[in-house]
Formats: sequence, C-alpha cells, structure tokens
Amino acid sequence: MSKPLSFQEVVMRLERYWADHGCLIWQPYSEKLGAGTANPATTLRVLGPEPWSVGYVEPSYRAPDGRYAENPNRMQMHTQYQVILKPDPGNPQELYLGSLEAVGIDMREHDVRFVEDKWESPALGSWGLGWEVWLDGQEISQYTYFQQAGGLNLDPVAVELTYGLERIVMYLQKVRAVWDIDWDGVHTYGDVYKRPEVEHCIYNFELGDVERLAQMYNLYEAEAKACMERGLVIPAYDYVLRCSHTFNLLDSRGAVGVTERAHYFGRMRDLSRQIARLYVEQRKEMGYPFLKESAVRDEQQEQFDAQYPVPGSQPQTFLLEIGTEELPVGDLALALEQLEAAVPRMLDEARLSFESVRVVGTPRRQAVLIYGLAPRQPDRTTEIQGPPAKVAFDADGNPTRAAEGFARKQGVSVDALRLVTEGDRTYVVATVTEEGRPATAVLAEELPNLIAGLRFPRTIRWNETNIYFSRPLRWFVGLLGEQVIPFRYAGVVSGRITRGLRPLGSPDIELTGADGYLETMAAHQIVVDMAERRDLVRTQTKALAASVGGCIPDDPDLLEEVTNLVERPTALLGEFESEYLALPQDVLITVMKKHQRYFPVVQDESGKLMPYFITVRNGDDLHLDVVREGNEDVLRARFSDAKFFYENDTRQPLEGFLPRLDTLTFQEQLGSMLDKSKRLEKLVPVVGRALGLDEGEQAMASRAAHLCKADLATQLVVELTSLQGLMGRQYARLSGEVEAVATAIFEHYLPRSADDTLPGSKPGLALGLADRLDSLVGLFGVGLAPSGSADPYGLRRAALGVVQNLVEHRVALSLHPLLVEAAALMPVRIAEQALDDVAEFIAERLRGWLRDRGFRYDVVDAVLAERGDDPYSAYRTVAQLAVWVERDDWMDLLNAYGRCIRIVRDQEQRFAFEPDLDLEPATAALAKATRTARAQIRPESDVDRFLTAIHPMIPAINQFFDDVLVMHEDRALRESRLGLLQDVWELSRGIVDVTRLEGF
Amino acid sequence: MSKPLSFQEVVMRLERYWADHGCLIWQPYSEKLGAGTANPATTLRVLGPEPWSVGYVEPSYRAPDGRYAENPNRMQMHTQYQVILKPDPGNPQELYLGSLEAVGIDMREHDVRFVEDKWESPALGSWGLGWEVWLDGQEISQYTYFQQAGGLNLDPVAVELTYGLERIVMYLQKVRAVWDIDWDGVHTYGDVYKRPEVEHCIYNFELGDVERLAQMYNLYEAEAKACMERGLVIPAYDYVLRCSHTFNLLDSRGAVGVTERAHYFGRMRDLSRQIARLYVEQRKEMGYPFLKESAVRDEQQEQFDAQYPVPGSQPQTFLLEIGTEELPVGDLALALEQLEAAVPRMLDEARLSFESVRVVGTPRRQAVLIYGLAPRQPDRTTEIQGPPAKVAFDADGNPTRAAEGFARKQGVSVDALRLVTEGDRTYVVATVTEEGRPATAVLAEELPNLIAGLRFPRTIRWNETNIYFSRPLRWFVGLLGEQVIPFRYAGVVSGRITRGLRPLGSPDIELTGADGYLETMAAHQIVVDMAERRDLVRTQTKALAASVGGCIPDDPDLLEEVTNLVERPTALLGEFESEYLALPQDVLITVMKKHQRYFPVVQDESGKLMPYFITVRNGDDLHLDVVREGNEDVLRARFSDAKFFYENDTRQPLEGFLPRLDTLTFQEQLGSMLDKSKRLEKLVPVVGRALGLDEGEQAMASRAAHLCKADLATQLVVELTSLQGLMGRQYARLSGEVEAVATAIFEHYLPRSADDTLPGSKPGLALGLADRLDSLVGLFGVGLAPSGSADPYGLRRAALGVVQNLVEHRVALSLHPLLVEAAALMPVRIAEQALDDVAEFIAERLRGWLRDRGFRYDVVDAVLAERGDDPYSAYRTVAQLAVWVERDDWMDLLNAYGRCIRIVRDQEQRFAFEPDLDLEPATAALAKATRTARAQIRPESDVDRFLTAIHPMIPAINQFFDDVLVMHEDRALRESRLGLLQDVWELSRGIVDVTRLEGF
Repeated sequence: MSKPLSFQEVVMRLERYWADHGCLIWQPYSEKLGAGTANPATTLRVLGPEPWSVGYVEPSYRAPDGRYAENPNRMQMHTQYQVILKPDPGNPQELYLGSLEAVGIDMREHDVRFVEDKWESPALGSWGLGWEVWLDGQEISQYTYFQQAGGLNLDPVAVELTYGLERIVMYLQKVRAVWDIDWDGVHTYGDVYKRPEVEHCIYNFELGDVERLAQMYNLYEAEAKACMERGLVIPAYDYVLRCSHTFNLLDSRGAVGVTERAHYFGRMRDLSRQIARLYVEQRKEMGYPFLKESAVRDEQQEQFDAQYPVPGSQPQTFLLEIGTEELPVGDLALALEQLEAAVPRMLDEARLSFESVRVVGTPRRQAVLIYGLAPRQPDRTTEIQGPPAKVAFDADGNPTRAAEGFARKQGVSVDALRLVTEGDRTYVVATVTEEGRPATAVLAEELPNLIAGLRFPRTIRWNETNIYFSRPLRWFVGLLGEQVIPFRYAGVVSGRITRGLRPLGSPDIELTGADGYLETMAAHQIVVDMAERRDLVRTQTKALAASVGGCIPDDPDLLEEVTNLVERPTALLGEFESEYLALPQDVLITVMKKHQRYFPVVQDESGKLMPYFITVRNGDDLHLDVVREGNEDVLRARFSDAKFFYENDTRQPLEGFLPRLDTLTFQEQLGSMLDKSKRLEKLVPVVGRALGLDEGEQAMASRAAHLCKADLATQLVVELTSLQGLMGRQYARLSGEVEAVATAIFEHYLPRSADDTLPGSKPGLALGLADRLDSLVGLFGVGLAPSGSADPYGLRRAALGVVQNLVEHRVALSLHPLLVEAAALMPVRIAEQALDDVAEFIAERLRGWLRDRGFRYDVVDAVLAERGDDPYSAYRTVAQLAVWVERDDWMDLLNAYGRCIRIVRDQEQRFAFEPDLDLEPATAALAKATRTARAQIRPESDVDRFLTAIHPMIPAINQFFDDVLVMHEDRALRESRLGLLQDVWELSRGIVDVTRLEGF
Repeated sequence: MSKPLSFQEVVMRLERYWADHGCLIWQPYSEKLGAGTANPATTLRVLGPEPWSVGYVEPSYRAPDGRYAENPNRMQMHTQYQVILKPDPGNPQELYLGSLEAVGIDMREHDVRFVEDKWESPALGSWGLGWEVWLDGQEISQYTYFQQAGGLNLDPVAVELTYGLERIVMYLQKVRAVWDIDWDGVHTYGDVYKRPEVEHCIYNFELGDVERLAQMYNLYEAEAKACMERGLVIPAYDYVLRCSHTFNLLDSRGAVGVTERAHYFGRMRDLSRQIARLYVEQRKEMGYPFLKESAVRDEQQEQFDAQYPVPGSQPQTFLLEIGTEELPVGDLALALEQLEAAVPRMLDEARLSFESVRVVGTPRRQAVLIYGLAPRQPDRTTEIQGPPAKVAFDADGNPTRAAEGFARKQGVSVDALRLVTEGDRTYVVATVTEEGRPATAVLAEELPNLIAGLRFPRTIRWNETNIYFSRPLRWFVGLLGEQVIPFRYAGVVSGRITRGLRPLGSPDIELTGADGYLETMAAHQIVVDMAERRDLVRTQTKALAASVGGCIPDDPDLLEEVTNLVERPTALLGEFESEYLALPQDVLITVMKKHQRYFPVVQDESGKLMPYFITVRNGDDLHLDVVREGNEDVLRARFSDAKFFYENDTRQPLEGFLPRLDTLTFQEQLGSMLDKSKRLEKLVPVVGRALGLDEGEQAMASRAAHLCKADLATQLVVELTSLQGLMGRQYARLSGEVEAVATAIFEHYLPRSADDTLPGSKPGLALGLADRLDSLVGLFGVGLAPSGSADPYGLRRAALGVVQNLVEHRVALSLHPLLVEAAALMPVRIAEQALDDVAEFIAERLRGWLRDRGFRYDVVDAVLAERGDDPYSAYRTVAQLAVWVERDDWMDLLNAYGRCIRIVRDQEQRFAFEPDLDLEPATAALAKATRTARAQIRPESDVDRFLTAIHPMIPAINQFFDDVLVMHEDRALRESRLGLLQDVWELSRGIVDVTRLEGF
C-alpha cells in the first residue's frame, strides 16, 4: 500500500479533479463563514437560470462546536471542500464517488452510505434535500439538491457537495485525532491549527464581550441595509456574513435564548432574502451573461409510439425497476406501499389482466413484477347513442346528413346504425368495437403516470424537467418478457440496464428479461426484498450480540431504518472502551441510535449496556475490519465528546448553572430563561393547588421549578438538545436533589412527542403545566402566536401537552384562572384578548386530539362549546356522549329535547314559567318532569347524568307539544310556556350544546 | 505556441510547484487582508527560530486602490500568491524564476528585472528589503528579505515572494484588461469579479458610514486588547486585521488625515507588536516544536589553510568577483567606489605589490582586477629588543637562562643575539627575519575582511550567518592567475564559477583564470564596466529618440539608474496613444520616470513631449517585440489611471474640493485640513506683513491660502502624492484662478527637499511660511514634537524649509511674534513652553544648515545664542563673523573684549558706571571709547558694524586693565568699574555671544 496522501495533497487532488470535470476553481472567502455554502460562490451563484459549476476550499467557523482541541474531531474550525454543479450533470453521485477514488478511497474497502438528510439554513433562507455521505459510519460529506436559497426557488436546481476534509484525511491516513493528520509530509494538522483552536475556544466561550459583539451585530446590520438600498449585493452580503459569525459568537457566549435565536435568524433571513432578490434582479438586468455559454439543451422529444414492440400472444412477466438515488427510509416504504396499491389499479383501469403483482425495493431501486400479464387489452364493444330517430331518418326512412355525420364520427357505416327505444323516445345507436391495444403500448403510456403518481412528504426537483420526486430518478427498466417498454420520464429513458451495488462501482447490468430479475439481483448480491433484508439484519445482529453474551433491545424503528439503508446487509460487531459505560446510559444510547444508527448491545438479564455496538454495512464482508475500525473511531469520538461535556457539566451542582440562564434569552420582552424559571416558581404553587397537590408535593414542585431549566446551560444539553430534562434529572441526582425533584425536572417536558410517556408524578405534571401555560400566555401576549403553518416556538406542541396531560391524568380543571395567574406574572401587560386566544388555541388542540381518537365531530363540537376550558371534563363528556348518540332511542331523546330548544332558541328575552297561569295538565307534567331532572343536574354534571336525567322527560315533552299550543295568542300564557321550555333548555348549560349535534 | 494557462491553472501550477519545493500549502485567510503578508501564516510564522515554508493564494483588499472597474488593472481587490521560505534555501531567486517558468513564462522571451524595493508595513511594524520583480516593465511580484515583523528582528530571516497573479496571467494570456482574463476556459475574470469590484468601490468611496466604521474600529481594538490580556494570539490578531481593513475603509471615505493616519498606524502597530511578542513567547513556551524537524545545520568549519595553493614566481593578475543578488543602483555605485579605495589600501597593508587595480561591476557582480600582483610578500627583518645585557649575560659573559628563553621565543640561536647600547643602557637584541607569505594565503585571509568592510546605507541579513550586506551574497570568484583563492564569507565559498545573464538562466560559467575575465564576460554578453554600459544606454536611447525625430532631456540620475539596472542593456522604443498628451506633462513625466524608469522623448526644439518612451531591457534583442508590447501595456494602464483621475478631478473647480478637506483630519486636536486652511487664511496676512508684501500680494496670498490644500482631496494627488502643489497649480489654472494664486499654491510646498528650488513669489513664500509655522506650533503644542529619530509629521523638514526660505530669500524676520500669532489661531491652548521649543527646534535646523555650509561651530553657536530667532540675520552674522575670526588681529580683539567680559560674567548684579567716582584716566578713556562704540551699534546691527565699532577700543581696554584695579577694595569704586565693563559687554547683546567663540 502506498503512503496515504497528505492533507494538502488531498486538497490539490480535489482541485484537479473538479477542474478536470468542468468546475471553476475558487478560493475560500474573505470573511469567517460557517460553511462553504455561505460563500457567495454558492449562496448567490446558485440563484437564477445561469449555469455555474465551482469548487473551493472553505475553512468553516462554527464557534459553538469548539472543544478546546480536546476532542479528536470536533473543532470550531474545520475545512470544507465545496462543489456546486448547476445544472445537475445527470451523474453527480458517480462524479462524487469518482472524487473519493481520486483521493485514494477504494469503494471496495469501505462502507460508503448515503443517509438521508435535510439541509436547512434559517440564516440564509435556504434548504435542500440529499444525504449525509458516511464513510464507515463517519459523515464525510453532505450532498444536497439545493431547492431554495435566500428564500427563492432554484431553477435549475444546483447539486451541492460539501466534503469534510479533515475526516476524509483522517480515514486515509488512519489517524484517530484530527491533530495527527499529516499536512504536508512535515507538519501535522495540530502543528498548524491546534493552538489557534484552543485560543478561539477560549475567546468564543469565555472572553468575547457580549455587549461589544451585540454592538457589532447592529453596526453590520445597519451597513448591510445601507448597501442594499444602493443595490450593492456583495458589500451587503459581506456584512450579513459578519452578522452571522457574530451571532455564532454571541451564541457561544450563551447570550442567545431560544426565542431570541428565532429573532436573530429572522433578521438574518430577511437580509439574506433581500440580497438574493437583489442579486437575481441584477443578473437579469445584466442579461444573464453566463447563459450564452451553454447552448439551450436540445431535448429530442422522441416519439416512442412508432417503436412499441409487438407483444407475444401469451401472458408474460413484466418488470418495472425505478432506479433512484438513495431514497430516505420512510420514502422507500411509502413508495413500495403506493406501488402495491397503484399497480393493480392501473392494470384494472388499463384493462390488462394479470395473475399477481409483487413489489420489492431497496434504497436505490423500487421494482414491480407483474406475473401473467396479458399481452393486450381485450377488445371492447360499446353502444353510442346518436340523434333521435326522427332527426336521423327522414320521412322516407332514409338516413339524413345527421345520421351520416354520426356514423362517420363513430367510424361505422350508416347501415350499421340501429334504433333503440327507451320510454317514449327513440334514438339512433351505433355499436362500436374498440380493438384491445397491445400491453406494450398501454404500459408505455401508463408507466410515467404511475411514477408521477407516487407521493412523498417532501420532494425535490433536480434537473431541467423540474419534476418532483423523493430523490432523483436515474434509470428505468421496463421489460415485458424480454421486450423493453420504451418510455421517458423526468428526462430518463427506460431500457434494460440496471445497476449493481455501490461498493462494486454500480456496474451496468443488462437484464435479458423480466423473469430472471430476482435471480440476477441475487447473483449481484442485491437483496431486493425488504422482508428478506430485515430478516438478514435481525439474524445477523442477533448472532453477533449473542457472540458476546448479549442481546439487542427490541427496536422496530431502528431495524426498519437500518434495513432500508442498505441493498446488501452485512452486520458487524464493534467495540468501545468500557470507560464510557460510566456515562449515563441515555446519553450512550442516544448517541448510538440517533446519531449512528447502531444497535446497542445489552446484557441478557439486566438490560445493562455492554461495550459493543452493531452496525450494518452495505456490501459484503471484504475488508470488514477496515469498516469496523472506522465505525469504532467514530463512536469513540462521539463518546469522547459526550464524556467531555458530561465531566465539565458535573464539576458543579446543577444549581450552579442557574446564573448562566440569565444570559439565555427566552424572549426579548419576556426576559431570560432565568426570569422564566422564577415565574414558574411562582406559578407552580397555584397550578399545584388546582391539581390538588399536597404540601410535600408542592415543595417538590417548587424546588423542581427552581431547577428545571438549569440543564439548558449544560454543555451536554447544548450539544444534544434531545437530552434536555433527561440530563436535568441526572445532574439533579448527582447534585443531591431528592428523587422527586429530579423526576419532576425530567417529567415537566413530558410528553415530548405525540406518543411519548406522560409525567408519572404530580410535581412533574404541575411543573409541566405551569411551564406550558407560561409559554403560551407570554408568547401570545407579546404577539407571537403561531401563524399559518409557522410555529417557531412549538406552541402547538405545548398546548397539546396541556391537553394530553390533563386528559390522561384525569384531572378536571378549569384553565382560565391559571391563564389569568400566568398573565399576572409576566413582565409585560397581557391583554384579555390574548388569554381568550390561548384558551381557544388549547381548545383547538383538544378538538384535534378528540377527533384523532375517532369521536364524531358533532359530538366534539357540542361538548367543546360548553367545556373547552376543561380538557378532561370535555373528554369524559365526549366519551359519554359518544355512547349516547349510538343508542337506538337517541333520536327520540334528541328530537324531544330538540323541540323544546328550537322553539325558544331565537327568543332574546328570558321568560318565567308561571304555573298558575297555565292549567293544561301536559304543561304541569312537563314542569314536574323538568323539576325532577333539574334536581339531578348541575352545570358540572357529566353528560351521562344529564342525559339520564332528561331521558324520562321524553313522554312529557311529546305530550306537551301534542296538547299545548306554545305560541298562544294570550301573551302571558305564551310567555309562561316559553319560560318553561327555556327551563328545559337550561338543563344542558355547561354540559353540552345539543344544537350542534347531528340530527338536531 | 500552446494555449496560455487559465487563471486557475496558474494557481494550481504554483501550488504544485511550491508543494514540490517543500512548502506547506495554505489557504487564503478568513478576514479581509490588505496583502498575503498579513495572513498569520506570514506575519506570525516568520517570527522566532523555527523553519517555515508556505505557499498560498490571498485575495487582497485595498479599498483606496479601487477604480470602479474602469481601469484595466487597478482594483480594490487583487489576488496574490504568497510564498515564505524560512530560512533562506540559498537559491530563492532561482526558485522564484523556476516558478515563473512553471507557469509558462520563458525567460528568453521577456525582460525580467529585479528593481530595488523597500517594503514596509507601518500597521504591522514590519519591514524588509528586496525587489519589485518586473516582467516587461510590469511589476509582477514583490520579493523581500523580511527583516522585522511586529517590531521584532527575524532570525532567521524569511524570504517573502508575493506574486500579483492577475498581472502574471494578463501577460500569459496577452490580454490588456484584467477583466478579460480567462479564468477556467469558460468564464472571464470579469465574469467573476467585475460587478463585485464596482460594488465594493461604491461602498468604499461613497457609502461606508464613517461613524459606524469608526465605532467598529474601536470595538475591534477593544476586543483585540482583551484577547491579548488573555494571551490569545490568533483571536487578537483577527481583530487587528479587522482594524486594518476598517482603517482602509475610513481612508477611502476620505476620513483620515495625515496626522490621524499616523495615530491610527500607531495604534495598529502597537497591537501588532504586542501580538508578535505574545506569539514569540508562546512558541518559546511550547519549546519551538518545529525546530526538531530541521537538524541543526552542520556547518563544516573547513580549514582552508592547509590548502592554500602555492603561487607562481611571477606577478599575476588577480580576480575577485563578488556575486550578489541584484544590488540597488545606489549600493552598486557605493560598492564600486569603496572597492576602488579599499583594495589598494588592503594590498599596501598586506605588503603585496601590484601594478594597477580596476574595479568593474553590474547589479549582480562587483569585480576587482589586480594587475601585476606579486606572488608573495617580501621578507621582513625586524630587530626585537630583549632583556638588559646584565640580565642576559652573567658576569662571565655567558648567556643566562633569560637570554636562552628570549632567543628561543624569537626563534633565533643564542649566538645570534646582539648587544645594542642606547643612552646609558645596553640591551640584548634579536634580528628576526619574517618570510613573506604567499599572496594566496594573504588574500584568503584578507578578502573576507574586504567584503565585510563594504558599507551601505541600508543592509539586510538573509541567512543563518546573519551577516549584513546590501543584498545576499551568492558566489565568490577568487583567482590568482589560474589558481583559486579559497575563502568563505556569509556561508559562501569562493571558486572559479561565475554566472551568466539571467535571461539565459544564469548558467554557470567556469573561469580558467583571472586574465580572461573581461573577455569571458563579454563573450557571455555581460557588460561589466559601468561606463561602458552607460555609453551604450546613452547611444542607444539617443538613436531611438532620433529615429522619431525627438531627443531625450538630460537626466543623469535616470541614466545612472537605468545603467545599473541591467547587465546588458538593449534599449527599445515604445509608443503610447497621443490622447494622453492632453494630460499635464508633469503627470506623464512623473509616471514615466518615477514609476517606470522610462526615458521620455521630447521634440528637439520645443521640448514638448512626444508619444514615445524608451526603456532598456536586460538582455539581447531576442523577442524584443514582446518586451515592447508589455511595456506599452504597462504605461497605457498607468496613463489610463492618471487620466481617469485627472478627468474626475477637473469635473469641478479646485474650490469644489474644499468641503472634502473637512473629512481629512490634519490632527485630531487640531482639526481637519479645512480647519488648517482657514487658519492659514488668517495667518498669512500677518506673515505677509512681516515679509513686506504689498496689498496685491497679500490678496493673492490669502486666496492661495484658501485653496492651497484643496488638491489633497483630488484623486490624482491621493494617488501620486509627489504631485501635490503641482496639481494644485494646474487645477487652479483650469479653475480660472489668477496665475499668482496658482503659483503660490505650488510654491508653498517649496522646497520639497534639500536641493529643491525655492518659491519665486512673495505670496508663495508667505504661504509656505505660514503653513510650516502652523504645523510646527500646532503639533508641538499638542505634544507631537519629533522624538529621537522618529519624525512622522516631517517637522524637521518643515523647520528646515523655514530656514532655507528666509535665508535664501534674504528676509530678516523675527519668528517669535509669528509663532505667537500662529498659536493664537489654534483650537487648543498652546503653552508658552511649546513656542520656546519650536523656536529652539528651528534654531537647531539653522545650526545644522550653517554647519553644513562649513561655518565653524563656535561661530555658529556664538551667533545663534543671540540671533537664532531670525535665520537670515543669523546667517548673515555668521558669514561676517567667519571672516573676522580669520583675521590676523582677531585674537587681539577677542582677548581685549574677552577680558572685559570674563571679569563681569559672573556678577549677578548690574552696576552703574559712576564717572565721577573714578578719576583714573584709563577709566575715562575706556568710558569714552565705549560711548563712541555704542553710538554706532544697535542690537540689530550686523556683526561687521559691531566688530568694526569695538575694534578701536582695544588700546583703551588694554590700558584700562594695565592701569586700573577693577576689584578695588572700595566697594563703590569697584561697582562703578564693574558697571563700565558691563557696559562694554552689553555692546554685543543681540548680536553675538562672544563667550562662545574659540579662544575666549
């Protein structure tokens, strides 16, 4: 094996490679950027219709990623190599893999994976979809189909490749720490960068003056705006870049809270969007000078019709293979599901008979096998109605010109027209026989529609056709027996060529016919059937875990994901230093599963974590050791990271982090996270009382309120946000807090998602409620209610959490007093309207939650109209009412009760029933029934009690309406009777609004 | 001829070339830098003892250089390729030229020149010497031996190569505007950079908010200081870089005056120096990690002694050739002069006889030819005195042990000792004969001293020997006849190899012997004799000028310079567009001579400029057309630049520039240049009155004062500072000002240097005086008097200008009232002491000026003690006194007059002469003589009158002292006599302080 390339040699090889592949070679930018994407050679040049391909190095500064050079590969500065290809050259993945070969990465020796990724830069108003490219478990590149930049849609779309140079070179050189990279044959990367790294970390985390940095930010922003007013794109953009870097510094200093972050992002996004628009206008004014270079693509709109092959006479097997770039796991499942449903439907509609359909798939191919597909449609005879007989034939019975025209149009002779009489009218009818078309022609027409009909939650465009799909479509195989079904979609033409495994270089594989497909794939090591792959993964991983006396905790999601990341799974067992087991298990598992898609290995009995992990490689077992080592290195680095944080965090008690919360802004007008904590300390006793907490629980809840946000200032949580609450609990325990406090700290975030567990303790419940109400009231109060689909502060989730917790904890509780209480604690005055809006907002979540549980909309509406303020009561009422409305006698009850209401509903005046005035026995009977019912009901009664109480009134009501004229001409009598009916209606007040029920 | 390389290909070739030559390949920095030097990979890494070789691209931002993309090669951003070689690899020039070949520049086709250059960055506290490298007249690189950075001496010295990439590529691609450069085969440089260039120019010159930029500067500075306190080198340095760029922006916005500039520079320099020191300490603490890589050079301290060749018996020719990198023109002349004097002296001292010495030289070699050099020193006999005879011999006349010891020590036998009697003592004497040493040995010892003895005004170190010389020494030829004289100096060992012409690749040329040297050089096209080269240049240029009917104005300095820039001159005639002749001739000639070292061509009769220039190429006439074209392009670009400015400047009258002066700070406390102008308007009438201007002249002077600084705001003067005043005059004329005003504007700067012309008009004289007094009083007043050798505001020059103008204009004038007047106009209170300091400072300049003219120091001192305030009077007095002190009877006069003074000099009291008290006739005679003299003298009398008046007093004085006892015991008598002598002394008051004269 030759000496691995030095760092600088890798850079030079990449420059050479991309220059040879048509890229303009550019330079790092003259400002501190967070990534190569921020270089105007990307951000701006991807906009507009002009072609642009470019490659450049970009030292990328991300202050919060600094680790004082104590981590083997996390730094506040790392080096990217950035490539933009616009438009899509058609084979960007292959070009990318070619560049890896150019720097000495042999695909056969490693595991290269395309792991779905969404890239988004709020600060730049940009996003795209693509993948992280993993080399033996390590992310070495980001690969993105850039959809939008500066808030503008890209057309054409640009392919963006971002190499993490250090990581690639670490692999090539087999060094475990970035600092040991050989830079030039003499110096190491550490020689060059280590000291500056440490210094920058000290500056970023400890020294940067928050006040001065904030001033700089404002100055930059002001200059950027001034530049924009003069139409100066680049000077404005330079200042936006400084804003962005300065923001990162403020962030590293802990001076940016969640909501303030959104505010800063908003400012930067606004600037970026304006600049993007300005740039596009500028290029347009300049006449898009680069367009002249690339001749407009002369798309041959080939007509396949003439070429449809003639099918044989016997049913045959049909194969459709949709060749894609690696689909996201979820999208693959969706695609296969949809194909399973859509293909039979398509065939039925196309009148092509078939025996069976099988759908298989991998991330790179989704295949449909139709067995016993008829060679053609059957002929079809239809009768077509023509003009009336008297129009079609003259008095002599000769066909008129109308008949001739109809016959000609239908393609039959006039002689073949028949007369049909229907009822009292007689028409001309033509019998038309449509010859069945060959399956080849039908499929050629239908397959593009089939593919176009596939839906994904998130799609992209990639080439000049601007067709949307999950990821780019790159080849189609369409074979009926041995014949190619020719079609074109999204610029791709079907054929008989499929592609082999990535580690083998995706060689072209020519398929002779549809029948041999599964065998051919198997022969080329590709496991196309998902179930088969899943079984392989399960069996392999289980065996490996067993080999060290462990097992793998059940995790269907992870299994599904891993199964669908590969075309040929080969599991391998990796090890990590057992010292890391000292870290909280949550942390280790989060890292393994969430970050690495590794299966953790636990001891059979205790469930205790073992120092192993299992990962699944895409490919066979050649050079499996290299892959293992690589993955072990990655995990080591990640654990080292976590350990570093954990150790730092535990150097002081949890309470020690509280002061830092003061620099973490919750929202500008609402103060810091510390202010929020203090509000919670005041609000939680109120909430606790409403929930019926005892004195001890109240004390726990208050202490937990004091500490519940402290972990937000810990490094581990800053790094792994999903651990918030979890680490709070852990650190609270280590700090000697009582367990109930630790638990409440963790639980106040529950439920974190729709199917998460709920708080088990009352202090946790109370604190969570207080926290959510504080956020809702505060943010609504300062005008930050969610609008449209935007909900940057996660208020929908907060409101839903309130609902879930109250309902599932079976706590009946009126929210309004708590909202008032929360409002009183705010540093700004909260308008009454805002509280109403919050109440309505929570009620809306409750409505949705109830509807999701299958309750009828009318039942839900009827209850919420009265009980939206008390979610648990509302839920219980809905559940009871749902039973009632299904009873056979329900309509009797509704009709009877409804008659009472309908007649008084529009009366604006409230009348009194005067028993002495009305001597009708039916009136007296109804009045008595009403009294009886009223005695059993209160406004807070449940609906069961209410309905049970009014049910006996049905006969009295019906008798009343049979015998008595309510709207009597005697006004006093009329008003007394109306008063009685109003009494009846009033029985439902506070319980349910029956007028909203179906059938009312 | 193959297709020229694209811009990016040139970059990639340079990266490859320097990587292959041991450089670490680095990236552009993440801040906007003014030059690659500012990248910490240079600024910091050159410090300390560690080796460091690096290459990188650096887009370099110099806001004031922007031209809105209207100039073919002047931009606010250009791209440098920067190389640092530390330590000197021994052949850096050859490596550099190799890199040019690597990007396709054939040395045979072009004229590559090394033109002396001093590089200095006040903002970085750095300097070095080297060259601009010119390619066909265009500066394409700067080549510097970096001596100091951040205020620290570099050891070892670093070689810095800075390529101007655009210029190089323009040459390769034969395009005339940078915008037309082919970048990547598809895009032009203009495609990529033109629009941003225009935008940056608009921002830099028109938009950047001065207030906000100043705030940014202060914030950066504060952060930098905070970083330094924490020992953070790189974060501090990043902020210094931002300071520097922000300063450039302020400068472009016209917001930085001359003195404020110095203030800003001072702040940046302080920061840079602190950072440099911090970095060096840091590396030291780290144990200089890079040192370990480079084994300490194992210099063989070869001993040549054993190898000295034996010379023949006959006198021979000796050759010493000192091979250097290109010496500055002035240094070459100095070297040759010194060799001419030193070589004969060396030979005399070394007792080597010779017939004649000839010294010749070019920028790369200084050769000494010694004809008829004796093969060895003559033997030398000396007598050495030993012990006294009675010690050397015992009573028996036998030699004692003392005699034996003496004889042994002198290397003679005891028998050979002789006795010599001298006076009354007898000694032993040994006659010792020292054999003459061979010339080879003597020269080998003496030549290093000869070279070491050469002195230059400015020298550098370059390699580990840290020897100073004008430029690096690279080879020595030392031949006596055909024998090599072996010696070593500055790491170079002598031999018989010299080197050929640069355009031929400096091939090694082996010299067989000293005798053939001149012939061999001639055969290799090298004209070693300066006079011969000068004649060639003169003849060639004259002939070329004549060929277009023109001639070349006499300019010995330029001729001398051009002669000494080449080893083989070949003149060529270039042409420029005659449209440029519309520009002021001063501008064109300044550009041609000062910037390009071109000979302008004028019409024979009128002296009018013709559209031609002549330049002299180093080498023969191969591909002379390429060289001509290149030079024409350069001149075109420069003229285009000048034209651009000129046209911009003349769009408005000169007065229109006045408001801009308000943003040009003169000095923070003293206000803007506009404030200064206004002060001058008030001061000039006062000065004018003192100078005796008539009413008309006063009006002219006032108007000129109003306008005299306006041209500082014009672009041409901003660009070509040496044109200040000249352009003011030109623009004033174009603005319709009367000629006297235009003249005064120009003349107020005169004299600009020691041998410059003086103002010819009185308004010019008055204005210049006012301007200088304003600067002196103001800057002294705010504590900015020059200190040590530092004189950032040029106050020495200003004071000398005052002296020169007054003296040469023969204006007697007391400065003090004018200083008071100037002080009264200042916006701040000026202390009395400051005025005294200014007066003293001017007097010091006057003293120097008088001394330079050969006046005796005592004469000057004696006069200045009384008349330092009035330079012209002082001068005249000195001149007269100088004659007196040479008179034969001078001492009589001095002695007589001196006697009077000596006796009263220490009397603190002033007494009155009482004629009635003292009846001595001698007293009366002296009193009478004194009265007679006094009648002829006033304090402002010239010294001739004074001395003429007192000369007749000699007899009376002498008589007085013969006859009278001054210090009489009678107090009244004593005091009266003292009073008389005090009267005598008083005669000299205001004229001369005779006590300071030699002989007093």
